[in-house]
Amino acid sequence: MAEPNVTRIVAGWATSLDLADIPAEVRREGVRTFVNWLGCAIGGADHETVDCALAGVRPFAGPPQATVLGRGERLDVLHTALLNGISSHVLDYDDTHLKTIIHPAGPVASALLAVAELRPVTGRDLLAAQIVGVEIACRIGNSVYPDHYDRGWHITGTAGIFGAAAAVGRLLGLDEQRMCWALGIAATQASGLREMFGTMCKSFHPGRAAQNGALAAFLAEAGFDSSERAIEAPRGFANVLSTKQDYAEITEGLGERWEAALNSYKPFACGIVIHPTIDGCQQLREELRDAVREITEVAIRAHPLVLELTGKTGLEGKFSVYHAAAAALLRGDGSHSAFTDEAVNDPALVELRRKVKVTTDPKVHEASVDLTVTLRDGRRVSRSIERAIGSLERPLSDQQLEAKFRGQAVSRLSEGECERLIELAWRLPELERAAEVARAAVPSGAREAAR
Amino acid sequence: MAEPNVTRIVAGWATSLDLADIPAEVRREGVRTFVNWLGCAIGGADHETVDCALAGVRPFAGPPQATVLGRGERLDVLHTALLNGISSHVLDYDDTHLKTIIHPAGPVASALLAVAELRPVTGRDLLAAQIVGVEIACRIGNSVYPDHYDRGWHITGTAGIFGAAAAVGRLLGLDEQRMCWALGIAATQASGLREMFGTMCKSFHPGRAAQNGALAAFLAEAGFDSSERAIEAPRGFANVLSTKQDYAEITEGLGERWEAALNSYKPFACGIVIHPTIDGCQQLREELRDAVREITEVAIRAHPLVLELTGKTGLEGKFSVYHAAAAALLRGDGSHSAFTDEAVNDPALVELRRKVKVTTDPKVHEASVDLTVTLRDGRRVSRSIERAIGSLERPLSDQQLEAKFRGQAVSRLSEGECERLIELAWRLPELERAAEVARAAVPSGAREAAR
Repeated sequence: MAEPNVTRIVAGWATSLDLADIPAEVRREGVRTFVNWLGCAIGGADHETVDCALAGVRPFAGPPQATVLGRGERLDVLHTALLNGISSHVLDYDDTHLKTIIHPAGPVASALLAVAELRPVTGRDLLAAQIVGVEIACRIGNSVYPDHYDRGWHITGTAGIFGAAAAVGRLLGLDEQRMCWALGIAATQASGLREMFGTMCKSFHPGRAAQNGALAAFLAEAGFDSSERAIEAPRGFANVLSTKQDYAEITEGLGERWEAALNSYKPFACGIVIHPTIDGCQQLREELRDAVREITEVAIRAHPLVLELTGKTGLEGKFSVYHAAAAALLRGDGSHSAFTDEAVNDPALVELRRKVKVTTDPKVHEASVDLTVTLRDGRRVSRSIERAIGSLERPLSDQQLEAKFRGQAVSRLSEGECERLIELAWRLPELERAAEVARAAVPSGAREAAR
Repeated sequence: MAEPNVTRIVAGWATSLDLADIPAEVRREGVRTFVNWLGCAIGGADHETVDCALAGVRPFAGPPQATVLGRGERLDVLHTALLNGISSHVLDYDDTHLKTIIHPAGPVASALLAVAELRPVTGRDLLAAQIVGVEIACRIGNSVYPDHYDRGWHITGTAGIFGAAAAVGRLLGLDEQRMCWALGIAATQASGLREMFGTMCKSFHPGRAAQNGALAAFLAEAGFDSSERAIEAPRGFANVLSTKQDYAEITEGLGERWEAALNSYKPFACGIVIHPTIDGCQQLREELRDAVREITEVAIRAHPLVLELTGKTGLEGKFSVYHAAAAALLRGDGSHSAFTDEAVNDPALVELRRKVKVTTDPKVHEASVDLTVTLRDGRRVSRSIERAIGSLERPLSDQQLEAKFRGQAVSRLSEGECERLIELAWRLPELERAAEVARAAVPSGAREAAR
């Protein structure tokens, strides 16, 4: 076998890179990734999945070292990483590396911010570690995608743990040897089955990747050793968990081309294949204004995959292109509130979604859609979406990211707390203590209760 | 797809079985499994691997709920399960389900005894839970072995976690629904790569299986849901982690034929392929007495696998059939002390192992060996071992298990403490509180220090 020393190359790069070596636009995307992750973690904080996880682990939690975002409970670093990783993913609203469908911030940032509450970490160092962690998770993902994902692995968990281990390892100042061990301890914990989609275990995966990746780094720091070829060895991660192993995806152009710069942020709280439809329906609503009440038919022409993944007509609004179109037209909403039980049962939305007809055509691109609305007076208005808002071609602006953040944080924080937190998050690279963000991400009532 | 409801069948059986339904000889083997595991956990307690793991996790550990065996540190249940799982495996001296090479007690008993320190558990209930856990781990192992192992999975970790989850789930009184979830949460954490053999991560696997299996049960108890078909679903454990899925191995004859009764205990602290050689050399030593110093040649005829796995001539004594033969002849020793640096560097052993010649013959059974010793006066003495002591055909007697226990515990406990602990362990089924065993497995000095 003549694989390159992939694990050692990754470890060497992760330990030696300086934030100054990261191009400004990649650093900027890193801050946007952080802002988006923080809003998602707060938005998901009161989800039942987080309640159950907290109830399950609380009897075993260690010292109050770090903060459960949007709530205020203080747990040890590892359990905090778990809970924030769960809440950031639980609404299916987090970031996406589109080439691999990895949601990288959940594993990486959840681990990092928790560690930053235990040891002094500047915002600059946290940002560099996050970019390194996201880069490594996505590159390892690229090396095994799609075979690894097709086999049934939830790649956000399996690749994410490497990102969390490398990122935390950087904060701990591991040398190259110990960074290799951290990657090895991560590799031998890599797990998460796609069978779990639709259950609480789906968001458990990024949570555990954050927790277990951090554990890997702390164990390596304590001298716990591991294989130094855990990624590429014949019985290592890539060979055991995948039929495809393209190591060049991991090692080539490290520090030159940046996967971390290709992160994207969902503008809508649902499966990405519905996004063009919501985008187009929102645009039609702008144009039609009050006339949206006069709609007699909504005709959608889309790739067959759209119906395959989101052709549900029942209560699973997040998986219904019919419901999503109706909510975007009638409410202009594509956020979490568009998919609640209240929304799905709203008689006006029920009525409108019955008027939605979908025709499929494999010649339409998966990321495109053609929409035509017919009004009572016979008028027809059409809209074609080549690429939806939130795609790499049409990224969310900083203002749109902020609006998304506010829409999520509003359920947990006051307006003043929310604005202060947004401002802090954007200033991450300048913060003397990154932990300040975690402490500001707690409703004042909960902060007092935790004291 | 028409797989049987494997996960639900396992969950139903695990929740409803009563100890009285377990045949007496299976219960007896369960007690022997427990005694052997306890001695191994104490014997490994001062290993560097345990020191490093403890140093790494201690800052995050929760309340002092349970006891690190042979040491006395008190940590939360989950971290205790991790550490005892590591120490019980770290000397490669624990139990073996020979059909799958699973070492089942590490994951299962390490989780159970820790839980028994948190909640009131009788020895009877712990024993029943251990037998159920070992049975499930070995049956799930059977269903995917050998393909799963050949692919590179350390099956003690991947199958062991199911055993730990089911066993702890029983102690918690989970209903069938929640037991399904516990198995699902276990399935989506199943991990452990054979690439880690030779590093500290090898014993990390049973440790994590114990810890993560217990976590799965506690999460399910708290209402954290999961797939109910995690073992057999198209993207479930068996399909994603193996090319072989023989579900009948899991579901057929449950409660009738018992894998838990096929557990075996290593008499020697090294790879099982050397055991016939050590057994034969110890018998030759009995016969030769002082004449062992007159040996000019030791001829070993064995299956080629023996040399492939244990043909090392350097310092890795545990992987050297040469060293093992010399230590058994000259010292009568096959325990951990036969493989220390001191032993490997002993000039008398170095000299004798140079006189060991191995010839291989594929017609010799892997579990057999022919030995011929030549003495200075030209006399030759031979011994053939059909099956070694410790095999299913020649199991260790209770007295031999006790002797093994004493040999391991002597480094941590006084003779009085050791004898009391052995007596307690044999009386497991009668104990009102199983936790008594954990508290007795601590040197008195450490017990006082922990107060």
